[in-house]
Amino acid sequence: MNRRKFLKGSTVITGFFALNPSVIVSNNLETMSKKDKKTKNIIFLISDGMSSGTLQMANLYARNILGKNGNWIGLYTENKVSRALMDTASASSSVTDSAAASSSFGGGHRVKNGVLNVGPNGERYLPIWQKFKNEGKKAGCVTTVSITHATPAGFCVNSDRRSAENEIAEMYADIGLDVMLGGGDDFFNASKRADRKDIYKTYEEKGYQILKQKSDLKKIKKGKKTLGVFASGALPYSIDRANIEDLQQTPTLADMSTAAIEQLKDHEEGFVLLIEAGKVDWAAHANDIAALIHDQLAFDEAVKIAIDFAKKDKETLVIITTDHGNANPGLIYGADATEKFNSIAEYKYTNEYILNSIHSDFNQKQIKDWIYETNKINLTDEEAAHLLNFYSGIEKQESGLYNYKKLPFKAYSEIQKKHNNIGWISMDHSGDYVELAAFGPGSELLKPFVQNIDLHYLMLEAASKSKI
Amino acid sequence: MNRRKFLKGSTVITGFFALNPSVIVSNNLETMSKKDKKTKNIIFLISDGMSSGTLQMANLYARNILGKNGNWIGLYTENKVSRALMDTASASSSVTDSAAASSSFGGGHRVKNGVLNVGPNGERYLPIWQKFKNEGKKAGCVTTVSITHATPAGFCVNSDRRSAENEIAEMYADIGLDVMLGGGDDFFNASKRADRKDIYKTYEEKGYQILKQKSDLKKIKKGKKTLGVFASGALPYSIDRANIEDLQQTPTLADMSTAAIEQLKDHEEGFVLLIEAGKVDWAAHANDIAALIHDQLAFDEAVKIAIDFAKKDKETLVIITTDHGNANPGLIYGADATEKFNSIAEYKYTNEYILNSIHSDFNQKQIKDWIYETNKINLTDEEAAHLLNFYSGIEKQESGLYNYKKLPFKAYSEIQKKHNNIGWISMDHSGDYVELAAFGPGSELLKPFVQNIDLHYLMLEAASKSKI
Repeated sequence: MNRRKFLKGSTVITGFFALNPSVIVSNNLETMSKKDKKTKNIIFLISDGMSSGTLQMANLYARNILGKNGNWIGLYTENKVSRALMDTASASSSVTDSAAASSSFGGGHRVKNGVLNVGPNGERYLPIWQKFKNEGKKAGCVTTVSITHATPAGFCVNSDRRSAENEIAEMYADIGLDVMLGGGDDFFNASKRADRKDIYKTYEEKGYQILKQKSDLKKIKKGKKTLGVFASGALPYSIDRANIEDLQQTPTLADMSTAAIEQLKDHEEGFVLLIEAGKVDWAAHANDIAALIHDQLAFDEAVKIAIDFAKKDKETLVIITTDHGNANPGLIYGADATEKFNSIAEYKYTNEYILNSIHSDFNQKQIKDWIYETNKINLTDEEAAHLLNFYSGIEKQESGLYNYKKLPFKAYSEIQKKHNNIGWISMDHSGDYVELAAFGPGSELLKPFVQNIDLHYLMLEAASKSKI
Repeated sequence: MNRRKFLKGSTVITGFFALNPSVIVSNNLETMSKKDKKTKNIIFLISDGMSSGTLQMANLYARNILGKNGNWIGLYTENKVSRALMDTASASSSVTDSAAASSSFGGGHRVKNGVLNVGPNGERYLPIWQKFKNEGKKAGCVTTVSITHATPAGFCVNSDRRSAENEIAEMYADIGLDVMLGGGDDFFNASKRADRKDIYKTYEEKGYQILKQKSDLKKIKKGKKTLGVFASGALPYSIDRANIEDLQQTPTLADMSTAAIEQLKDHEEGFVLLIEAGKVDWAAHANDIAALIHDQLAFDEAVKIAIDFAKKDKETLVIITTDHGNANPGLIYGADATEKFNSIAEYKYTNEYILNSIHSDFNQKQIKDWIYETNKINLTDEEAAHLLNFYSGIEKQESGLYNYKKLPFKAYSEIQKKHNNIGWISMDHSGDYVELAAFGPGSELLKPFVQNIDLHYLMLEAASKSKI
């Protein structure tokens, strides 16, 4: 970052925001707190649904295939961060969903699964990005799933139902969040919403610029509020984007993170930004190892972007974690375990793409050729027949969260397991304690074992003016 | 600990060991190092094959059922330890076995799976308990499996084959290890060894006292070398010991740990002690959740004993970790996940005991009654028939490491999963990074991310006189 540019931009933005009453209030507080608070900005990175093995296997892939250590683990080897183990439970269960998990961070209270910052008696806990907005900071979210999905929503809004994504799209505009980048056109586009409301128009009327594809990121007007919606629902998985030309007009998590930080950074009161790798969770739900590793590596690139900014900035607290485990994948002991793991480098696409390309009229040779082309796996006759049965209706279709096309994820993952030695405990979240790292001013507040809600208060302690 | 008693005992032992040439050498070095080294003793605790979820579920069980936090996690909430994430790979694979893992700690070199401290060209790396013995410290091992098993052996001996337990039993006597407590009568008893050698006699001739049952721990002669062998192979699982009277003459891991520390502690040059919960690994191999949780809790009791000693002693480094993950068990998301998890409190025995009690002449009612009596699970007709098929020979017997009786562990675990929501990725080790904590002087040397071999050098750095 250019320090001179930073100062110049900062002045401009302060002028712009001085019109906003909440900023004026916080400007009054500023003199009180400035000496005590070293944390001006917060970047909170969540690899959604990342079990212990997900982190390890992405790092193993980085080392074995890409010839470098991952950025997250690199922070440990450089001894740059505070670490904790985090208990992720919700109010209703030892195993949380993403809504309750995000509410813990966002609202500071454990709530029931499925709910966003609403207590058992209807209490509405003020979400932390609103708290920081009220103090004059800018706030934003970046995600690879719909921007209205549970994890960003938990930092921003209250809702009885995480599935109320249409309403959440409108709430964001009311709150006036500064940079929101992700997927979810289905919840903004008049032609796709049941109520036919044009939510983009709502945002435009509030002064937002709207981005629709990766190239729009280059055209961002500095200082203007920004909504970027780059896909109807979730953005593509990283491995598919890398290998399918049609998907390359969508930005990566790193692209969006860079743009969001650029847009938020030159603000005198500072900023708070959530960066979520939402499809790490989806890949775990699908027991899809290539999707999982490549999206975890995409998250790891975003970690680097956040840390590189924070190293220069020196006033930014970076938190790197997940909201819960999912499927507890792991590389299993056995002859050639390492070679089998390394064979994942041959996988070209997600299982979603591979399985969705198979049709009921495929013969055995066609399915075998396709699987070999995409995974370098030679199916046996029995395996080919078994897979085809899911398309002909002989085998019952699989269901499952995010398995919109009812593809045989589990059946295919079990075939892959013979070749890559990766196992999964289920197709859903786990209750494991999870990994958490913090970098920069405020990271010294982190204790070695935390509840998810503790992070809410840690962020306030580090950066809120009302918590001097 | 009584401080006066400590000093008195210390004098006596010094006199005894002054006859040993290696102690004389190290006494010369002592004056050089005494000022620099704060770490006199090391207690190294290994819960063998403990995945992330094993630690979490044992702690959840402690909180939900026993009404208290676990001791290991308690050290985190009290902010008493240094923590690290550890890469557990071996020289031959990303997924280690216990022999290579223990060799990493013991010899400071990664070796091939199956081997104890022997390099690719026959190099013989001096095991760390021998290094410390050579400097005058006492050294010992405690385990719930045979004392000649891979994990204790990796700290003490060199061997091309971890399975050479007969030879390892003899090597320990040659080295003159001070306190060795565990199972493994098969490798000491003349009537059980193919060569008919009476290894107990060898030990007795070297001045050892021999212990055979729990009550013998009360009769230990202070200052005398001690071999305790309490079972033919491994000791019983904790949950079986608690509920089967015949097994109660065997000591718990906590019993053995207390006795070993008592026996070792009053030695002027200090001591090193390995404490292994070996059957946590076996329980994971068997996908047996009750065996796993209760043996992990037994480990957690040993953690408390070590920490309580170290808190008073103030010169003891305590390392708490595992050698690798195993089966990555986890509590899975779903309705009533917490209630289903809590139902494990109804389990009376290990699956090994339950399944071994079923006979091929059981009818459906008998097997249903037995499963209900022992697990409070109502089998369906189909499940009862499926299980019985393993006894009648219709289903092929299961095999697997430590499944000596070829019991249907996997089939039964899959039935239990419907009731307890616990999943497993396999019946074998995983390559996950693992949890590691260190307490006391020397713990400040721990970096946030380590290779297993790094612990070898950390222990030397902390406590060896030749590493001043």
